[in-house]
Amino acid sequence: MSFLRSSLPYRGREFGLQLLHRIATQGVRSASLLLAICLNSTAQSAEPARAPNVVIIFADDLGYGDLGCYGHPTVRTPNLDKMAAEGMKFTSFYSAAEVCTPSRAALLTGRLPLRTGMCSDTQRVLFPDSVGGLQTTEVTLAKALKAKGYATACVGKWHLGHRPEYLPTRHGFDSYFGIPYSNDMDRVPTKGPKGRAATFDPKSEYWNVPLVRGDKVVERPADQNTLTKRYTEEGVKFIRENKSKPFFLYLAHTMVHVPLFASKDFAGKSPRGIYGDAVEEVDWSAGEVLRALREEKLDANTLVFFTSDNGPWLQFGEHGGSAGPLRDGKGSTWEGGMREPGIAWWPGTVPAGVTTQEMASTMDLYVTAVRLAGGAVPDDRPIDGHDITPLLTGKGKSPRDTMYFYRGTKLFAVRHGPWKAHFITQPAYGKDGPTEHDPPLLYHLGRDPGEKTDVARDNPEVVKRLKEIAATHRAGMKPGELQLEKRVPEKK
Amino acid sequence: MSFLRSSLPYRGREFGLQLLHRIATQGVRSASLLLAICLNSTAQSAEPARAPNVVIIFADDLGYGDLGCYGHPTVRTPNLDKMAAEGMKFTSFYSAAEVCTPSRAALLTGRLPLRTGMCSDTQRVLFPDSVGGLQTTEVTLAKALKAKGYATACVGKWHLGHRPEYLPTRHGFDSYFGIPYSNDMDRVPTKGPKGRAATFDPKSEYWNVPLVRGDKVVERPADQNTLTKRYTEEGVKFIRENKSKPFFLYLAHTMVHVPLFASKDFAGKSPRGIYGDAVEEVDWSAGEVLRALREEKLDANTLVFFTSDNGPWLQFGEHGGSAGPLRDGKGSTWEGGMREPGIAWWPGTVPAGVTTQEMASTMDLYVTAVRLAGGAVPDDRPIDGHDITPLLTGKGKSPRDTMYFYRGTKLFAVRHGPWKAHFITQPAYGKDGPTEHDPPLLYHLGRDPGEKTDVARDNPEVVKRLKEIAATHRAGMKPGELQLEKRVPEKK
Repeated sequence: MSFLRSSLPYRGREFGLQLLHRIATQGVRSASLLLAICLNSTAQSAEPARAPNVVIIFADDLGYGDLGCYGHPTVRTPNLDKMAAEGMKFTSFYSAAEVCTPSRAALLTGRLPLRTGMCSDTQRVLFPDSVGGLQTTEVTLAKALKAKGYATACVGKWHLGHRPEYLPTRHGFDSYFGIPYSNDMDRVPTKGPKGRAATFDPKSEYWNVPLVRGDKVVERPADQNTLTKRYTEEGVKFIRENKSKPFFLYLAHTMVHVPLFASKDFAGKSPRGIYGDAVEEVDWSAGEVLRALREEKLDANTLVFFTSDNGPWLQFGEHGGSAGPLRDGKGSTWEGGMREPGIAWWPGTVPAGVTTQEMASTMDLYVTAVRLAGGAVPDDRPIDGHDITPLLTGKGKSPRDTMYFYRGTKLFAVRHGPWKAHFITQPAYGKDGPTEHDPPLLYHLGRDPGEKTDVARDNPEVVKRLKEIAATHRAGMKPGELQLEKRVPEKK
Repeated sequence: MSFLRSSLPYRGREFGLQLLHRIATQGVRSASLLLAICLNSTAQSAEPARAPNVVIIFADDLGYGDLGCYGHPTVRTPNLDKMAAEGMKFTSFYSAAEVCTPSRAALLTGRLPLRTGMCSDTQRVLFPDSVGGLQTTEVTLAKALKAKGYATACVGKWHLGHRPEYLPTRHGFDSYFGIPYSNDMDRVPTKGPKGRAATFDPKSEYWNVPLVRGDKVVERPADQNTLTKRYTEEGVKFIRENKSKPFFLYLAHTMVHVPLFASKDFAGKSPRGIYGDAVEEVDWSAGEVLRALREEKLDANTLVFFTSDNGPWLQFGEHGGSAGPLRDGKGSTWEGGMREPGIAWWPGTVPAGVTTQEMASTMDLYVTAVRLAGGAVPDDRPIDGHDITPLLTGKGKSPRDTMYFYRGTKLFAVRHGPWKAHFITQPAYGKDGPTEHDPPLLYHLGRDPGEKTDVARDNPEVVKRLKEIAATHRAGMKPGELQLEKRVPEKK
């Protein structure tokens, strides 16, 4: 059914059913309105229905609990709250890894980081002296959509290899504007407070991070105060310039990763302090993107998805975010490390005001977007994503019933349905090494989303099933060549 | 200004300003709609504008993080989420105490529990063998509204004295239907598992709690499975029978206090387990109340407020709720013990879809409701509430800038603006006694809502100011005669 849906023009095919459903649930008046809107849109575009545009807004280190619509008491996110009210809010949406580089590799390939080699147990992410990166044999989402005629742009943080051969423009993106790795890298040791402070004084000159356009450094250090604003302008410009053909915008914010920055319209404004300033500017940015889509009359033909790469960096106190009711944060395979805000928006296609507890992952965005574009996901390699179109359109459940939680190259935990088994745990960025558990720790994420009470002893059958699932998964896993451990030898 | 507002017919007076504001912010079409609605409503009721009805829905032991609109991942509360979307959602709304009896006394009198004597350091709440209760010299909200011609009903848990002289019908309520104290009292020691289990098997026959109508026991043990349903029916019946005059409905659910129950439409349905079942039935109940108000065309003239008496009872594991990102729960003066979901709904008067971080308290509901009814709060005794009408109507800020956090008779903490100083802390229901702090622990609740980082050392001026506020408050406090320590002597 997913294949059929992806191979036919989307809007026309579903329209009759939508209309009947609307009449049944909301009455004739509402259905007439839908009819009027659709006839109008048909009249405007005589050509065959166009594949939908795809916009992925990817925050950095944003916690599950950091948005108003996810319960934060003092961060104000009216634009994302409205996006959720007009779309679908996920309460079980997962990034594919607990840190940056592996998470981004998985989003853009639909594959677990271990398959692409974009993870490591010693180098958690890529660093300025790294020489590895995402291999061009991978079929990124940009490459897959470009093959279907999409204009493609990468705006923001990349972190999948900053050497020329790994940059976004080598991975299917027509253009790139952003910083190639994390904004706390390239720290100038002779400036600012000594050592790696628990909180950062937000002055950009401590970090000599380059700002790149295409494959050229255009600013160094990047003025981080205005990054969110400039990324937004770049993204909106791309939308406006490409309104006549399908496009894919990957807007990967540098914020809210420490060190935190906000432009002068936001700095010092949030009750939540500088972290809140940065979140509120990302929220503003999302509002600008949706506004541009509306103004260009692209809203009914664009899927926008908002999420983040991993959980909050709790070690940074007020400069780190909040996982809300979830346990732990970035760097951890507890829920707080990988469960994220997830908001889907596509007026007229994604139903409005729906909260779903169905499970989904960034890797599913890959498969879903490729299918919506009428493309085919690669069939010569394992793909870990699922097509969640039935879920997004309110017509069905998520095909995903299992999540694998890796830390580096090791499978730490597995979730199947509401049950999650931890085979290995490790405090995020703590000094203790990993602890193996046999039997695994077991939690019921429906009744105990905060992973407080291990119920393995009372559920031996569930433990057995999850161990089998983990064993089957491990047996089928063929790791790619590890990329993160390749670094420039230190000069002696 | 608040006095003026309360002494003039409300809707007519504000209408012109509303219309101008609507034109300015939403255009002429929206304003015309408002005009049409209001002309219509004027045409229907030729009599002078009537004082608004007041409905307070009071949950028991519900945590800050337990509703969908407050970020819970697995509890489904579509009715309360919708109520928030149509009204005002508070992120800094406080109950007046961290346990049941004192909290309820304060809600109904607008006074801190120590003033009414409804607190104690040894008996935290009233028990079946208590002989004290709320003194009839207190002017409850029911009494104050009855004096202005309101019909009044108390449905649900009372817990302010179960002897005949303390029952709701002696406190200004025309009628009473509910259980007189907590549903975990009157436990039958020969039935069910021995001791006080960490979780309860939800079979009502272990608790011989009486169900009272007026001052007569009508069922014992009360069938707790159907309590929420029956309370709801009683409340809706009261609304429908009193639609021709102003009314006050105090709907104080027995749920979601342990032992947990849900009727057969809800039992076993929530992904959150039995606790979720109980919350989801309370959510359904709120939906039924709003539906009845709409059906009787009373929605534009009724203020509905939803909140809870204190934070979640964390000791009960999955049978206790969640304070979300806040620290600790019931029994504690950390935020999780007293900060609650707070949702105000009054279509056309309370603006829709607003989230406010302004501070307010259950004691403010007392003053606000009395003023809206055109009444006067007692001037012969200290009143601790404020009139929050300007906040509720979207025209101003909350007059409250300070909250006092008592545990029993002792002032444990003070919040002033975003700052909160803890002079004494005590783990909720832990075995450790209270710990005094000098200097106090200091938290900035804007930047650090989870009270994680004590910043007293960096903010000596703030500490000084909060110590002064606490000292002034203590000096002005005249405790009432303590009621909770009066108990039937044990038979030897």
